[in-house]
Amino acid sequence: MKNIYLLGATGSIGEQTIEIIRANPQDFKLKGISGYSNFAKVKKIIEEFDLDVVCVKSKEEVNQLKKSNNYLNCFYGENGLVDLVSFNPKEEIVIINALVGMVGLKPTIKALEMNRDVLLANKETLVVGGHIINSILKNSRAKLYPIDSEHNALWQTLDGVDLKTVKRLVITASGGAFRDKTRDELEKVSLRDALNHPNWEMGKKITIDSATMMNKGFEIIEAAFLFDFDINQVDAIIHRESLVHSFVEFVDGSIIAQIADHDMRLPIHYAMYYPKRSNSIAKKLDLLQLNNVHFEVLDEKRFPCIKYAKDAFNIGGSMRTVLNAANEVAVKLFIENKIGFLDIEKIIYQEMQRHQVIDFPSVEEIYQIDSEIKQRVYTEY
Amino acid sequence: MKNIYLLGATGSIGEQTIEIIRANPQDFKLKGISGYSNFAKVKKIIEEFDLDVVCVKSKEEVNQLKKSNNYLNCFYGENGLVDLVSFNPKEEIVIINALVGMVGLKPTIKALEMNRDVLLANKETLVVGGHIINSILKNSRAKLYPIDSEHNALWQTLDGVDLKTVKRLVITASGGAFRDKTRDELEKVSLRDALNHPNWEMGKKITIDSATMMNKGFEIIEAAFLFDFDINQVDAIIHRESLVHSFVEFVDGSIIAQIADHDMRLPIHYAMYYPKRSNSIAKKLDLLQLNNVHFEVLDEKRFPCIKYAKDAFNIGGSMRTVLNAANEVAVKLFIENKIGFLDIEKIIYQEMQRHQVIDFPSVEEIYQIDSEIKQRVYTEY
Repeated sequence: MKNIYLLGATGSIGEQTIEIIRANPQDFKLKGISGYSNFAKVKKIIEEFDLDVVCVKSKEEVNQLKKSNNYLNCFYGENGLVDLVSFNPKEEIVIINALVGMVGLKPTIKALEMNRDVLLANKETLVVGGHIINSILKNSRAKLYPIDSEHNALWQTLDGVDLKTVKRLVITASGGAFRDKTRDELEKVSLRDALNHPNWEMGKKITIDSATMMNKGFEIIEAAFLFDFDINQVDAIIHRESLVHSFVEFVDGSIIAQIADHDMRLPIHYAMYYPKRSNSIAKKLDLLQLNNVHFEVLDEKRFPCIKYAKDAFNIGGSMRTVLNAANEVAVKLFIENKIGFLDIEKIIYQEMQRHQVIDFPSVEEIYQIDSEIKQRVYTEY
Repeated sequence: MKNIYLLGATGSIGEQTIEIIRANPQDFKLKGISGYSNFAKVKKIIEEFDLDVVCVKSKEEVNQLKKSNNYLNCFYGENGLVDLVSFNPKEEIVIINALVGMVGLKPTIKALEMNRDVLLANKETLVVGGHIINSILKNSRAKLYPIDSEHNALWQTLDGVDLKTVKRLVITASGGAFRDKTRDELEKVSLRDALNHPNWEMGKKITIDSATMMNKGFEIIEAAFLFDFDINQVDAIIHRESLVHSFVEFVDGSIIAQIADHDMRLPIHYAMYYPKRSNSIAKKLDLLQLNNVHFEVLDEKRFPCIKYAKDAFNIGGSMRTVLNAANEVAVKLFIENKIGFLDIEKIIYQEMQRHQVIDFPSVEEIYQIDSEIKQRVYTEY
């Protein structure tokens, strides 16, 4: 039986995690959640599960909860997330971090420091804080396990493997809204075009990140941190059908691929049950679905965000914070119709050029740089 | 440094094994070989390598070798193969069995009994003798490792895996000469049609076995023995491009595939270097070669040899010997233009119907049944 604290319980990954917990009450007990933007959903989850602790958006929400659930331990806001993951320190708890944004960094650090395993779906944790996380992991009994499909696929394939025998890690990319556009065509695309992802319905931010391919750039950085690889050994390839999630190329020429229907409940299930495998509620793939799969080179000239991500990793330190912050504010400006699509990459490039790198920035420095960049870019445009 | 005795040194697998040894003199020493049908090649290998022992076809060949290499230990014939694998019993030797036909069974048994690891490319060893081999392996320090591409692919994927979490093993089949033919069309195919394999040049026997799909039936039996699986958990799928060699389907829905250019030097290399991986001389695959791969159901109605193979495994014991012997003699009759293509499967079916099963036949009983069936069928047609 594993006790779970689920951060970001009302989002898509959070909901699918709850489906798995619901289907396997003999193996998992949901003991704590956080929810930020959907209070009604939070209340429903509290009704369904016997929780010890929650973190919500505001003091007002806490007061409301206390009225009907006065036994419940309640926290709120960003600090509340850290209080949540460190609650009941003597109990064995697995943290599932399905938060969106930099808010995921501090609770991950706190959980690992407390020797609590973290199943991670939060990109920013590794993109901006990978150096801190890997340094904590060296001195912690806790493990960090990836939930998103590509890294989970790599993990499944690399588990037990001597990493020195691996030549290259390749993650697949659906390609986003503009996978068929030339650079010239990208000059003229609209917000509506960018939000029209060919494969999935997702939030606006990540849909734009898919269109620019920055999403894949972030994932390349994450893979390099997760498996301690040189970023030049990590690549992405466009694969429209999203059935093959990763390839591991070995020095002898053998390639091991992880394949599955694109159902996030599989990677979540795998991470929750690791090191065992068991029957899952994820949709199963028929091998005949692999007929006519397609693979294309991900061209860094057409999608320079991939190059910027690799550059930011190679320069290191605070440059990854700049990459993330500049991208976040630029995508916001684009969604607000204040800049064009190709201005996103220009802003990222500019901010990276301007920045004076700090080699091993602390969490406080990361937050400070993040806010400086966002303010400056937002004021300039 | 591994010392190697290579059985079947002059065939295609033998030659490719020698290429690997030649490219890696720091890791392998060829100390013994057998060669049956190409004496000139045997003599060349003796010139190139510093061998302790050889096994050739006849007493005459032994005498000829002795003249110029009187230090060399020489054996001949089928018994000579057993003498070869048991030579110099105190030395650590790895046996590579690249023999064709039932002649591969006895030396494999002998080697395993002497605690010598066997890298196996000989199908008949497991098809007719799997029950004996697995029983010896239980009481031996020696290991049996598969060299052929599909089983080697499964091994690469299953190494270190809890087999209870595997739902199904799937090996791929190029499909043979008649992969696009209906049953009606199969009535009229000629020997020349059957020998025209769409992907490879191989010996006549195995090319016909590909056309009837019996080759894949044998491989399904081998996989069941090698990994100790229920044969209903082992399937084959037609994949014309022969780039994906196996799929392992797990209970959670995850599928792990092994992919590589179709170059036998990779599986041979993997088996020779196991448990390490290292740079190989095998051709490397570009992931873009995976564009437009195809997969088709292998229809047991169209290719009943698959069903007969599974039936023979399920009935067990000596029935697998019947399967192999009836197939071998029927293919011979077809090559001699004495029967039609579909008569091959009819003869196999007939002989399986007739047979009184022995549950755990000894090597002697296997040889006896083999010869009885071959004689009878050959006389009847």
